[in-house]
Amino acid sequence: MLPEEIKKFIEIFEKLPSIGPRQATRLAFRFVSLGTAKIEEIARAIFDLNKIKTCSRCFFIYSGEGDICQRCVDKNRQRDIFMVLEKETDLITIERTKKYNGLYLVLGELTKSGVLESWQKLRLGILKKIIEQELPSKKAKEIIIALNPNTYGDLNTSLIEKELKSHAQKISRLGRGIPTGGEIEFADEETLTHSLQRRE
Amino acid sequence: MLPEEIKKFIEIFEKLPSIGPRQATRLAFRFVSLGTAKIEEIARAIFDLNKIKTCSRCFFIYSGEGDICQRCVDKNRQRDIFMVLEKETDLITIERTKKYNGLYLVLGELTKSGVLESWQKLRLGILKKIIEQELPSKKAKEIIIALNPNTYGDLNTSLIEKELKSHAQKISRLGRGIPTGGEIEFADEETLTHSLQRRE
Repeated sequence: MLPEEIKKFIEIFEKLPSIGPRQATRLAFRFVSLGTAKIEEIARAIFDLNKIKTCSRCFFIYSGEGDICQRCVDKNRQRDIFMVLEKETDLITIERTKKYNGLYLVLGELTKSGVLESWQKLRLGILKKIIEQELPSKKAKEIIIALNPNTYGDLNTSLIEKELKSHAQKISRLGRGIPTGGEIEFADEETLTHSLQRRE
Repeated sequence: MLPEEIKKFIEIFEKLPSIGPRQATRLAFRFVSLGTAKIEEIARAIFDLNKIKTCSRCFFIYSGEGDICQRCVDKNRQRDIFMVLEKETDLITIERTKKYNGLYLVLGELTKSGVLESWQKLRLGILKKIIEQELPSKKAKEIIIALNPNTYGDLNTSLIEKELKSHAQKISRLGRGIPTGGEIEFADEETLTHSLQRRE
């Protein structure tokens, strides 16, 4: 009943994160209604994502020359502190706070299996090599393991900590507690325990 | 902080229906992670939406030759019954029931202002002309106005009914009642009233 072009579009888009068949269908109709020029602009914007590269040090994305991103060569950043995180979007959120000025390692999405993927171990290996080659003490001043504070995050944090502890004077995690705007009444026990233990 | 290509992508996608800045960002990273071949396939799928045309009779979309869709020339459909609906996705849902075999008019998204847009009046005018030219009695056997059953839908149904009543022996709406799987306890009064009055 639907034209092939629409079917193909839906087939691709319904598989994307948090887009189901219904939203994919609605998107298809929206795109069609936008007209030729806009459709071409959107297709071009997607095509241009091919210019994006992944930094071979921190594994965040960048575009431009070389194979290392601008952040990793920035002499104004503190070069003996590293933050290990799961997703690019986590990095963006941390950067937005403007409260962290060290370097990063994006580890990629963690499984719930309790083992790191081999390519994730490779990334940790690259971080260790960077520390060995660039820091006279061969130890980072601090490595912050910034994973989501839940059971899997805690499990993976332990795995990563084991891999990295020989290369850092200190390994830390993000502090837990009641979020700003949150309510004590609805906080879970573990959060409250943390916020009591780490009271400011 | 983000590459231009990603910013551009987010700028376009965050404006689409039910995609905000967060989901647009996540989509961008997902696309990048899919790699060159897949990115090109997605861009191509969007580009190909340019082949989609809007039928000049029913205003549903189609691809192929001519300026009338396959459904509108289908001799196996009943050609003196018409259903007026708001969105293409409504038509798809109705077709899926396989319980309607008449023709359609897609009116496009209705405003909440209580007036029809001029291009929507044009579409109703085209329907009237089709009825005058193709039906010997110059009246449709039935026109079903199938808008969402809410205050704005009811208001717009009245407006459309006024426009079309001279061209139809009968004007109808979709029956209201308790949906299959619904619970009497939680049904609103109006729905219950309808389902009592139209009991089967």
